[in-house]
Amino acid sequence: MTDRFIRVALAGIGSCASSFVQATVLSRDSGPRMAGVMHEHIGGYRLGDVEFVAAFDVDGNKVGQDLADAIAVAPTAALNHVPVPLTGVRVRSGPLLDGLDGNLSEMVHPHPDCASLTAADVTAALRQSRAQVLVCFLPTGSTAAVQAYARASAEAGVAFVNATPEPVANRAELVELFVSRGVPLLGDDLRSHLGATTLHTALLELLQSRGMHVANTYQLNVGGNMDFYNLADPTRSRSKQISKRRALTSAGIDSDDVAAGPNGYVKYLGDRKVCFLRIEAEGILGTPVSMEIRLEVEDSPNAASVVANAVRIARTAADQGLVGVVDPVCPFLFKSPPAGLPESEALRRFQHFVEKSARPATAYTGAARS
Amino acid sequence: MTDRFIRVALAGIGSCASSFVQATVLSRDSGPRMAGVMHEHIGGYRLGDVEFVAAFDVDGNKVGQDLADAIAVAPTAALNHVPVPLTGVRVRSGPLLDGLDGNLSEMVHPHPDCASLTAADVTAALRQSRAQVLVCFLPTGSTAAVQAYARASAEAGVAFVNATPEPVANRAELVELFVSRGVPLLGDDLRSHLGATTLHTALLELLQSRGMHVANTYQLNVGGNMDFYNLADPTRSRSKQISKRRALTSAGIDSDDVAAGPNGYVKYLGDRKVCFLRIEAEGILGTPVSMEIRLEVEDSPNAASVVANAVRIARTAADQGLVGVVDPVCPFLFKSPPAGLPESEALRRFQHFVEKSARPATAYTGAARS
Amino acid sequence: MTDRFIRVALAGIGSCASSFVQATVLSRDSGPRMAGVMHEHIGGYRLGDVEFVAAFDVDGNKVGQDLADAIAVAPTAALNHVPVPLTGVRVRSGPLLDGLDGNLSEMVHPHPDCASLTAADVTAALRQSRAQVLVCFLPTGSTAAVQAYARASAEAGVAFVNATPEPVANRAELVELFVSRGVPLLGDDLRSHLGATTLHTALLELLQSRGMHVANTYQLNVGGNMDFYNLADPTRSRSKQISKRRALTSAGIDSDDVAAGPNGYVKYLGDRKVCFLRIEAEGILGTPVSMEIRLEVEDSPNAASVVANAVRIARTAADQGLVGVVDPVCPFLFKSPPAGLPESEALRRFQHFVEKSARPATAYTGAARS
Amino acid sequence: MTDRFIRVALAGIGSCASSFVQATVLSRDSGPRMAGVMHEHIGGYRLGDVEFVAAFDVDGNKVGQDLADAIAVAPTAALNHVPVPLTGVRVRSGPLLDGLDGNLSEMVHPHPDCASLTAADVTAALRQSRAQVLVCFLPTGSTAAVQAYARASAEAGVAFVNATPEPVANRAELVELFVSRGVPLLGDDLRSHLGATTLHTALLELLQSRGMHVANTYQLNVGGNMDFYNLADPTRSRSKQISKRRALTSAGIDSDDVAAGPNGYVKYLGDRKVCFLRIEAEGILGTPVSMEIRLEVEDSPNAASVVANAVRIARTAADQGLVGVVDPVCPFLFKSPPAGLPESEALRRFQHFVEKSARPATAYTGAARS
Repeated sequence: MTDRFIRVALAGIGSCASSFVQATVLSRDSGPRMAGVMHEHIGGYRLGDVEFVAAFDVDGNKVGQDLADAIAVAPTAALNHVPVPLTGVRVRSGPLLDGLDGNLSEMVHPHPDCASLTAADVTAALRQSRAQVLVCFLPTGSTAAVQAYARASAEAGVAFVNATPEPVANRAELVELFVSRGVPLLGDDLRSHLGATTLHTALLELLQSRGMHVANTYQLNVGGNMDFYNLADPTRSRSKQISKRRALTSAGIDSDDVAAGPNGYVKYLGDRKVCFLRIEAEGILGTPVSMEIRLEVEDSPNAASVVANAVRIARTAADQGLVGVVDPVCPFLFKSPPAGLPESEALRRFQHFVEKSARPATAYTGAARS
Repeated sequence: MTDRFIRVALAGIGSCASSFVQATVLSRDSGPRMAGVMHEHIGGYRLGDVEFVAAFDVDGNKVGQDLADAIAVAPTAALNHVPVPLTGVRVRSGPLLDGLDGNLSEMVHPHPDCASLTAADVTAALRQSRAQVLVCFLPTGSTAAVQAYARASAEAGVAFVNATPEPVANRAELVELFVSRGVPLLGDDLRSHLGATTLHTALLELLQSRGMHVANTYQLNVGGNMDFYNLADPTRSRSKQISKRRALTSAGIDSDDVAAGPNGYVKYLGDRKVCFLRIEAEGILGTPVSMEIRLEVEDSPNAASVVANAVRIARTAADQGLVGVVDPVCPFLFKSPPAGLPESEALRRFQHFVEKSARPATAYTGAARS
Repeated sequence: MTDRFIRVALAGIGSCASSFVQATVLSRDSGPRMAGVMHEHIGGYRLGDVEFVAAFDVDGNKVGQDLADAIAVAPTAALNHVPVPLTGVRVRSGPLLDGLDGNLSEMVHPHPDCASLTAADVTAALRQSRAQVLVCFLPTGSTAAVQAYARASAEAGVAFVNATPEPVANRAELVELFVSRGVPLLGDDLRSHLGATTLHTALLELLQSRGMHVANTYQLNVGGNMDFYNLADPTRSRSKQISKRRALTSAGIDSDDVAAGPNGYVKYLGDRKVCFLRIEAEGILGTPVSMEIRLEVEDSPNAASVVANAVRIARTAADQGLVGVVDPVCPFLFKSPPAGLPESEALRRFQHFVEKSARPATAYTGAARS
Repeated sequence: MTDRFIRVALAGIGSCASSFVQATVLSRDSGPRMAGVMHEHIGGYRLGDVEFVAAFDVDGNKVGQDLADAIAVAPTAALNHVPVPLTGVRVRSGPLLDGLDGNLSEMVHPHPDCASLTAADVTAALRQSRAQVLVCFLPTGSTAAVQAYARASAEAGVAFVNATPEPVANRAELVELFVSRGVPLLGDDLRSHLGATTLHTALLELLQSRGMHVANTYQLNVGGNMDFYNLADPTRSRSKQISKRRALTSAGIDSDDVAAGPNGYVKYLGDRKVCFLRIEAEGILGTPVSMEIRLEVEDSPNAASVVANAVRIARTAADQGLVGVVDPVCPFLFKSPPAGLPESEALRRFQHFVEKSARPATAYTGAARS
């Protein structure tokens, strides 16, 4: 018989984690058509079936707090949309492998334990908590730490969701580790549920479907949360820019000359993100078509909608015995899957995966089985 | 053996006709990937296979002119993108059944013959010219004249493309006439190839596919061509507004409260059309998503791209012996088909029709056979 | 000694009246820098010195109600920003001289008394209430009624503020009446405090001050209150369009070809108004400069800010014995003053008038003196 | 008797220099109302009175070329609007004191002479050329070189226009040098003639004049010329951001939290610059006012319009015997004058200076007198 819950661990207790925890709480009392949730059931699981069992961070102000309290600690930008009851899960210290340079160092003071922690410590904690899925929400640029969590997850037999642009599903050696350990892997770089990249690629695809020739385009993004503060530091934003370009390339655009990046920290926006998109194309008789778009979204909840899909897919994939990168769903859920697809095709394969997984195939117990 | 040409008659020699004639001329020298043309072949026909055989108008300055000259007569707003050689087709006077009221009367002085002409005269002219497809480009509000051309077309055995918002494919009596005469019918209200309605419904569908709840939306359109000048007269714009709302309803939006209409004549824009779109939706945790879009297109060429599809579909439908409304293609090509579909489904069925019609099934000779 | 109050009568108890009454209430408890109020004192008067003494409307649902209740009766779009205590002033029925045609007739059912009332009845009511200033907020298109209120006001010796685009300050005969009766007059067509016309003319002036040549411009306005519902009826919107063009002409723009008008009713906006402005100009070396602006304001409060200036100016003008049109202030407060000025000069003269009126010159008692 | 010409030297032969040279050429044949030129005469001089006598650069591809050819050498983004006849002035090598780091180093290969040149060499060249005004157009971040040119200019008795954001007019020691040598100085950081900062401050001033409280604002700038490529390097953009904030502070805005900077390099824009401005303010009853603006300008010509004012002011100031910073004009012409002013006041003082300088007071011969 199937375990009705999904035991989830979170690494990086910032804005995205906050929104995801809140969405999970809200879904317990919501009817079947909750805004921003594409499917009430995935693999037989409702969003409300998520149960948090572990949490990791390096911030001295968060470590030791109940997860419900830690998600409200500054500089978390996520707004409080719903009250979160105590979870009984205390935030553990995680490994600080990349250091805290640039803008981040002004905002975060690491817990003293973090310096000496390693992937092995994470593996142990995951096993102890009997987690089934680990979602990695670390800041962009934390390459070493993200990869350490990925390794720990594979070793513990825990399905891994890489929300960051750091390469995991794009790193052959790590993919092989997940395959060899028989564990599903989803990544890299969580899309916004309805964000700049999704809108941009959908519009490019619309133009292309009409035989229009796309001539010029930009995608400018500004925001006021920690992600944008962190990305104002160009050494940290490199992986983000590369990831955005990959998404455009998958849409059939030669992205070499496309400006698509984080373009500035606008403090007053808080967790809101503003995107300015322009597309100039050529139609019949060489006539110009142009569109200029201003998209405004709340950033962290936008991520929560995708994670609401991803954790249930991860659990379902494990139920079905899938190992390594879960190819049919990653192009829809992530900006940089190992193999990208045009927007509409990515959606089609995702929906197909969800439809045929309407019921969980087998019981799966995650880290607990070790 | 198949006739390699499509013998086309045009009613209403204004901006749209101008762009369509120009596009046809250009396509004769273009390679396989001409911008704004979705398919090089439809039913075995290239756009360059179109041959003009008849033209109708009421404007005293156009009647009697070669079609190549008439398309350049003021107040035609369409820009000259390519030179058009003489066609040998002289514009005939057409029936003036609705009169010229409001703004139109200042711009157009009808040819004296028009007052007494009827549908029967059009039928005779279509037969004489051996037309296979009649495209109706009359101004919005010319209900009686549009329906007279439709009747004449059915009687002459000529496939009919209703580019106007006046009801033809939505008028049961006329549809029956086409069925009884064994003639294909396409309509009503030509979409722009990439215009406000297409973009609006594509975006609404994108949001809905993500489980977002659309809260508020508007679609405001301004332009500087005769269509907008004519529509500044509210009695003439009624059918246009109804048609725009039908397109939104097909996209799953309760359009009762949606502002979507012609919103003003801005002279300096000439043939350019500017659309302001806004969509406000609700995502996970009740968080707001908003997008504000400014779309600028050249209006008449935008219509030409759709007619480039429609005339070849009409010929192909006749080749295949289809009669009455050509259901699989109308939701993609028109704003107000008898039965609308969501954007992506409309595209899918259109593409499917085109794919399976890769070769013409049978010879067809249109009006000539009578 | 000066009367410390301004005894105000209102004609047309709709959205603008609501916002003005609310602003007056709020100002009683506000400090010196209340947002949207340019001057704490004008002629020695604070906004909180306004006292309402009479109110007129034709709506059967408003007549007989206390002013505080009537301002909340549908279809008033103004939002309730502050609670309004009972005023002790009951709305009287006013003359219905223009009838209620078009869209208005669906929304308003006139009180039976209105049909027989005349300007003389208004004069009597103004005298009885000892009003000092009458502000006319009637709907656009009510030419006869507006001019009747103006006449009544002049006859009663009450300073008149014409917030509507109907000609009063632009009607020589009425101006003479105010002069002959020794009464100040302000009008026509209240500007928004910060609305489309103000922003448009300020930007045009900015470009001109730099020697740029303005080539093309539009100003498109949509909104969701009764004003926009009413203006969707083209016979009623004529005076509004003429007034907007006058404002542009004063800014040195040849407004013949400028699209500047009410462009649609967008229900969900309620009392919000959205303006799309575009200016294209030519700079050095013939290079293009373009700006595209989206301005969003709350419509009725925007009017309240200007009325907050106008009623105090009207009282001050009466204190100073000024008669007829108060020329130095009208170009700043109204779109169609008898003689317009460029934006910056209009502001300069208004500010100068306020500065030199820092103290009221003489006592003035308005209608009470008759 | 007055010398009818202004003998101008240019340092930094990039896009701005190109547009300025072109504008000078065009003005020789233009009538009195040339677009983008505020005043036909300043101090008795027409723009066509400018004569180029010296030019400096470090780029090996420009040194030794005639100025007319050098302004067309890549990576100059300025468009060719008018043909420029040979000037007879060859570009000299200038001192390379800051090196070429970051993005610049990929684009520019310095002439071998540059490494050893010093301010003294520039002084000698200025004397030899008998220049009267030196305009410094070096890239942002070239602090040492800009200050060396300033010193050289003062020593040679040549009026100096600092178009860069590097501190000259804001460096006490340099200002004293100009005073002690009896030479006028204009700076720092040329405004665009009609650019983001001017529009931003004008709008903020408009809102403030109406008593609105500005709550939030941003100013985002992207472009495709060398300036934006250079500024994508954050170490070089620091002085630019500081300068933009100073301009906002002068407009009465607490600029600490205002995002206003260079926000990205968008290659396809070439010399065009796009600015996204947003202002959110609070009006009466606490109601929101928001404006979102997209401004598009051609960057280099925009600078040329200001230099067209500045070089004539510099010559006029020298004619009048003014020394050190020319206070009345700098707040209008520069983003970071030593003492900023609100937009309208800056304009007023500039216009006043121009009016009272309608005729040159005395002859002045610049570097030639030494």
